[in-house]
Amino acid sequence: MVIMAASTSSLTFQPILERIAEEIGRTPGRGRPADYIPALAACDPRRFGMAVAELDGSVYGVGDWREPFSTQSITKVFTLALDLAREGDELWEHVGREPSGNPFNSLIQLEYENGIPRNPFINAGALVVTDRLQTRTGDASGELLAFLRAESGNPTLDFDKDVAASESAHGDRNAALAHFMASYGNIDNPVPALLDQYFRQCSVTASCADLALATTFLARHGIRADGTRLLTRSQAKQVNAVMLTCGTYDAAGDFAYRVGLPGKSGVGGGIIAVVPGRCTLCVWSPGLDERGNSVAGVAALDRFTTLTGVSVF
Amino acid sequence: MVIMAASTSSLTFQPILERIAEEIGRTPGRGRPADYIPALAACDPRRFGMAVAELDGSVYGVGDWREPFSTQSITKVFTLALDLAREGDELWEHVGREPSGNPFNSLIQLEYENGIPRNPFINAGALVVTDRLQTRTGDASGELLAFLRAESGNPTLDFDKDVAASESAHGDRNAALAHFMASYGNIDNPVPALLDQYFRQCSVTASCADLALATTFLARHGIRADGTRLLTRSQAKQVNAVMLTCGTYDAAGDFAYRVGLPGKSGVGGGIIAVVPGRCTLCVWSPGLDERGNSVAGVAALDRFTTLTGVSVF
Amino acid sequence: MVIMAASTSSLTFQPILERIAEEIGRTPGRGRPADYIPALAACDPRRFGMAVAELDGSVYGVGDWREPFSTQSITKVFTLALDLAREGDELWEHVGREPSGNPFNSLIQLEYENGIPRNPFINAGALVVTDRLQTRTGDASGELLAFLRAESGNPTLDFDKDVAASESAHGDRNAALAHFMASYGNIDNPVPALLDQYFRQCSVTASCADLALATTFLARHGIRADGTRLLTRSQAKQVNAVMLTCGTYDAAGDFAYRVGLPGKSGVGGGIIAVVPGRCTLCVWSPGLDERGNSVAGVAALDRFTTLTGVSVF
Amino acid sequence: MVIMAASTSSLTFQPILERIAEEIGRTPGRGRPADYIPALAACDPRRFGMAVAELDGSVYGVGDWREPFSTQSITKVFTLALDLAREGDELWEHVGREPSGNPFNSLIQLEYENGIPRNPFINAGALVVTDRLQTRTGDASGELLAFLRAESGNPTLDFDKDVAASESAHGDRNAALAHFMASYGNIDNPVPALLDQYFRQCSVTASCADLALATTFLARHGIRADGTRLLTRSQAKQVNAVMLTCGTYDAAGDFAYRVGLPGKSGVGGGIIAVVPGRCTLCVWSPGLDERGNSVAGVAALDRFTTLTGVSVF
Repeated sequence: MVIMAASTSSLTFQPILERIAEEIGRTPGRGRPADYIPALAACDPRRFGMAVAELDGSVYGVGDWREPFSTQSITKVFTLALDLAREGDELWEHVGREPSGNPFNSLIQLEYENGIPRNPFINAGALVVTDRLQTRTGDASGELLAFLRAESGNPTLDFDKDVAASESAHGDRNAALAHFMASYGNIDNPVPALLDQYFRQCSVTASCADLALATTFLARHGIRADGTRLLTRSQAKQVNAVMLTCGTYDAAGDFAYRVGLPGKSGVGGGIIAVVPGRCTLCVWSPGLDERGNSVAGVAALDRFTTLTGVSVF
Repeated sequence: MVIMAASTSSLTFQPILERIAEEIGRTPGRGRPADYIPALAACDPRRFGMAVAELDGSVYGVGDWREPFSTQSITKVFTLALDLAREGDELWEHVGREPSGNPFNSLIQLEYENGIPRNPFINAGALVVTDRLQTRTGDASGELLAFLRAESGNPTLDFDKDVAASESAHGDRNAALAHFMASYGNIDNPVPALLDQYFRQCSVTASCADLALATTFLARHGIRADGTRLLTRSQAKQVNAVMLTCGTYDAAGDFAYRVGLPGKSGVGGGIIAVVPGRCTLCVWSPGLDERGNSVAGVAALDRFTTLTGVSVF
Repeated sequence: MVIMAASTSSLTFQPILERIAEEIGRTPGRGRPADYIPALAACDPRRFGMAVAELDGSVYGVGDWREPFSTQSITKVFTLALDLAREGDELWEHVGREPSGNPFNSLIQLEYENGIPRNPFINAGALVVTDRLQTRTGDASGELLAFLRAESGNPTLDFDKDVAASESAHGDRNAALAHFMASYGNIDNPVPALLDQYFRQCSVTASCADLALATTFLARHGIRADGTRLLTRSQAKQVNAVMLTCGTYDAAGDFAYRVGLPGKSGVGGGIIAVVPGRCTLCVWSPGLDERGNSVAGVAALDRFTTLTGVSVF
Repeated sequence: MVIMAASTSSLTFQPILERIAEEIGRTPGRGRPADYIPALAACDPRRFGMAVAELDGSVYGVGDWREPFSTQSITKVFTLALDLAREGDELWEHVGREPSGNPFNSLIQLEYENGIPRNPFINAGALVVTDRLQTRTGDASGELLAFLRAESGNPTLDFDKDVAASESAHGDRNAALAHFMASYGNIDNPVPALLDQYFRQCSVTASCADLALATTFLARHGIRADGTRLLTRSQAKQVNAVMLTCGTYDAAGDFAYRVGLPGKSGVGGGIIAVVPGRCTLCVWSPGLDERGNSVAGVAALDRFTTLTGVSVF
């Protein structure tokens, strides 16, 4: 269920969203969709949507804000929160929370640091988080789906089986990472079963409206849509901090510099962002820059913080 | 000149500082002072000071907050700001603004990225910034000293010649970095002259009070103590973003997670931090953790943000 | 001690072997057996055997020269020869023939060089060779076994199922390498099937006598025991060259320096060596140095070339 | 063509040299001269010379075999021998004797191995050897020049001051290596003085005839032209082994595979090679392949060993 204008406090940013959409629409150059799997390569880079969700559960947006797209790495935020809620700080013995530097170094860093990935948002780290959630729940991707449906109020939100199969067919690099960490004793589940869970999580399809709503627990310092607490205030701060320093591949510094908000991007072209204590945002446009972030998405968030002055800095 | 309680708005955090100092005083375990040069190794790890400077120029503190110490890498923030003010975005063609990952990789990353260091706060990046400021001013360290004296209101603030000489005597690694970048054409000045400027900057001696005051331009979105503008609002945001993502060596993620403020540490045991739009902090205690950050300093800032709730997240 | 003397030309080096065995017997310090799988860890490091095989097929030795042991990486030489015989220089488009430098760098080099391993004797390279032989024959390990039996004249020579199972149970690092190369398109077979073939090859059990005989085709410039040609003269030279530069892990330079012969070691404690045009040697003693080569084995070969002057240099 | 025939044993290979020169003359494609300094870039890639020196001191050749050229890294062999003769095995505590793998990794390997370069023929290793010879003699390059003049019987052989100055002007990368090793305590002399010695050594100008003669001590197992011993038999074997495994940059395996002789190349287009106990060779042609070895030089040595069968394998 999508809620629009549920309270008087909502729609605050609607004129700003419309101005941004208008500016983006006039801007040529959108980058190129991810092409490592066919399902992503087919996306039209001219698509653009942006949604804001407020703390009271209202959500509004512009453009293709209700159009489902492939969330990809965005779901790493939710899996992290679900596992952190269960095991707390013990998680940080198995995955770090430092930026990873150049992607070129991912494997050498894993070797140098004895199979402990740098943070939960690089693939190696997300595999560890999924592995741990799988051990605790028996169905990591099922937990994720239930959470996303509950928070977004959208019971039709689901995996895309074709995307998951496509990820699996191109999954040798993730298999290498998982086996490599297993050689250090940092993976508990059998690698094929782990990969199956991981690729399903990557395949979730959701809209900007869905994701903005599902992210509001981070703006509410850990409180879910139904008022129950998922994370402690401190844990919510931790997740936001990891998003700011590690959430946009090798462009986290650039994103902090331009946008100045905790954010997490996916190669499907989506980006979520958190204004702590205030609201959340989700933007989508499939064309990517050379570092894997949505060109129009980053531009839109940059404009949003410039126009509203809501940056954390 | 140190100003204490200059307005009614000040002293807000004095009770909190006193509580933190009391807690820190009861805590055993302070890490060990840096030992690569004798001048630092001789420091007593039980020393502790903390200062807060407010936007109106008032400053107050606890413990050894008026005791001068070796600022070391903290001055990288001011050199960055002074050069950014002069050349603007052109600087970013010569130094990146992304976290550097594991320190082990500093040289391989320089090689992989053709002599462009990852950010202005690793030594390689600070050498580039100093080189560029030197080219523009003819006396990079003199510019730095004049700025620090003006902002802190302390005309006795100065270099420590013994520390600079000691740095120079142990300077082979920095010389290697400078020559390596010169081989890619990313250093303009002769390497020995550049190193001389660089080591002088590292040798500045200042107190928590001095540094908290000198940092207020970042909390004031770029405005200096005398009301003139050093940086545009956007540039001030950029410096804060780089501090948050890259300011504490290989612990930036951990610092963001625990403290949640833009900060910059030095191996002399000092740390500065910015609460944008509100105030600045400087803490000092010489004992370091294995990543080079003051143990008591990080703990004190962690307590400060926990007790006051001023984190950016 | 049983000596098998097939012709008048043989036994030339018997007095030298006996002298070496006597010297080795007096030497304390043998290193430690490999301990990553139980089957190897149980070996007694005081065991020592050494055999010489002459071009006419005669073989003789000292100590435990007829005792079967786990050949491990020694079989990489035979798999390389069997594949090179089939596909010729095309192989070198899929695996290099340069030393690999520090083992630490294996993964980064694979990444830097687009999934092409440095040489056929590091694990990544041996996986590629096995993959290609598997594609050509449908049973790479069966081909290897048939070849070893024919050349050694020992029909009981066989795989050790327990060792193969143990390798497989500890096989995550090799699985990571295989998947990583598959992500670059440099592996044809399904990774699990490839690993099964690979681990079987590592598990071959044979004696010094068996292996010295099986290696004589390299001393005969490519001619097998039955007089047929396996490799061209040029290909035999190529295999010898790769053994000299890459045959003893990260100690190839040291081995060339001390022994001065093409050689290949295994973590079971065996080493084969070739005196081109003259004879072959195989030595076995399970205690390893920190680089994975048999301590007594290298010492024995060092003494052999010193006493006989047969080094290639 | 002038042929100097000092004894009846000489001229053995003259017909083969002429055949090789004729074949090379018909072969198009010579690579490109090194272009990092102007003095090398101006060389004509069609130049070609080849000389053989026999153990009795006779020397003969074809083409431009008496034309002086820039020896560059070839002199690393002589500096190594001169230092090894003085300090023996202690040298190997300061420089390794293992191949270095990909050039990309030179700096990371230095860091991983605490400032000990992999072998004496990479630049870092040659800097260490020069540093140690300098400490022992006070004039490393003077020692080198005296040795080369004595062995070649050519008193006009000399440094090229323009080349040395040009190397120095482009010497930032070598300066970086030297300072980096100094930071680990593995360099004794001041870096500028060491670099001066090093660049002079690189600037030696000599002909194929000169270098073939100067190398004969390695074919005579350590005995100089005047009958005195420079190296022990074991040390001469060591130098030959290091040449075979490390003498041709990142193509040592390929060179062993194709040529099968200990050899050392320079970016001036020269290559020396040793047939232990038999003769030495020197070939020169300025066009290089992408790994820095003379295209026509490697081809000529490949043909030589193929036609004569003198490979060590």
